[in-house]
Amino acid sequence: MPPTIAVIGGTGHEGPGLALRWAKSGQYRVIIGSRQPEKAAGAAAELNARLGQSLVRGMANPEAAAAADVVVLTVPYSAHAATLESIRAGLAGKILVDVSVPLQPPQVGRVYIPPGGSAAVEAQTLLGGDVRVVAAFQNISAVHLEDPDHPIESDVLVCGDDAAAKAEAVALARAAGLRGLDAGPLQNAVVVEGLTAVLIGINRRYKVKGAGIRITGIGEEPS
Amino acid sequence: MPPTIAVIGGTGHEGPGLALRWAKSGQYRVIIGSRQPEKAAGAAAELNARLGQSLVRGMANPEAAAAADVVVLTVPYSAHAATLESIRAGLAGKILVDVSVPLQPPQVGRVYIPPGGSAAVEAQTLLGGDVRVVAAFQNISAVHLEDPDHPIESDVLVCGDDAAAKAEAVALARAAGLRGLDAGPLQNAVVVEGLTAVLIGINRRYKVKGAGIRITGIGEEPS
Repeated sequence: MPPTIAVIGGTGHEGPGLALRWAKSGQYRVIIGSRQPEKAAGAAAELNARLGQSLVRGMANPEAAAAADVVVLTVPYSAHAATLESIRAGLAGKILVDVSVPLQPPQVGRVYIPPGGSAAVEAQTLLGGDVRVVAAFQNISAVHLEDPDHPIESDVLVCGDDAAAKAEAVALARAAGLRGLDAGPLQNAVVVEGLTAVLIGINRRYKVKGAGIRITGIGEEPS
Repeated sequence: MPPTIAVIGGTGHEGPGLALRWAKSGQYRVIIGSRQPEKAAGAAAELNARLGQSLVRGMANPEAAAAADVVVLTVPYSAHAATLESIRAGLAGKILVDVSVPLQPPQVGRVYIPPGGSAAVEAQTLLGGDVRVVAAFQNISAVHLEDPDHPIESDVLVCGDDAAAKAEAVALARAAGLRGLDAGPLQNAVVVEGLTAVLIGINRRYKVKGAGIRITGIGEEPS
């Protein structure tokens, strides 16, 4: 049985594209989580219609987290702590992949470092050592994510303190058609999260929609 | 008369390659600065031998800064504040391009955020509003910098609060054969500096020497 991924906040900007790519890979069962279960069910139905088969389910966030093997958090930073509180009962012993980016609207092109150091470190602090938090996927523009046949010229930098959890995030990247790279300890997430603000600013200044980053000089290109 | 660039700490890791490329471009007169003037003179002589003409001079750091139009700071973070103090008399009204990266050896693959927020913000705080500080070139590996014919697959992310100063740093990048991109306000330097720690970690983990970053999706490749 393939592992189950829950995409918490999966009806938002980044969630549907990731859910679609993971479901399409055939390597994961996918649950879309939302605060409103009917909204999650609607998003799942839409993805299933695109996939041509019923591979995605919708649930309320806490049930989605509890039913999953790996939990992926894609909510705006303003909902970060409250969402974590709402799902924490279902996270024990699991991997949490935190996609959150601390931004302070309206200055979303300006790097903002939250009080806890980074969103991912705040998540780890809130959840304690029983949950392995990994930071990943923050720099992937949602623009091309929802077209699973569109190659994305951006790497996934993975930060975390648990090697097996980082390897799982690298595998999730690969299943989504992306190259995942080990970017060091969870503490380094401050840079990867902040890079999203830099990319948002570049999108504005250079009048593009999906600026991303690629690590060069490591002699390997993504498939 | 072309503008004069002083590369402070120019006998170190990153300085000679930048000095060589700027001198070779024909667009700048270049001074290598060092704490020891004879060391600066030796480094300048070496570069002139490679260039086949006398384009680079060597001076003590304070004299180099005073003689330059644009000052580029390439010293280890441990010497950052003391070097700035030593050259500040020569910086009034000028642009300072800060290449410094705060690292805490031996954990150089771990992002370290200094008390002042970033090296570049600390420089601006120390120097006051009469000097326009720009952060740039931190992510360029020294490995290929000293071979001016070797293309470098890495972008220069430029952070600063003064548009003209950022444009000058972008021009300096172009003269060195690199693409410079406006990465937002000086506050964003924390991410660009920290990215160097991430790249150092990637070099170690993936057993390469010159990992860099490229911004993708902006539809323009460096020349």
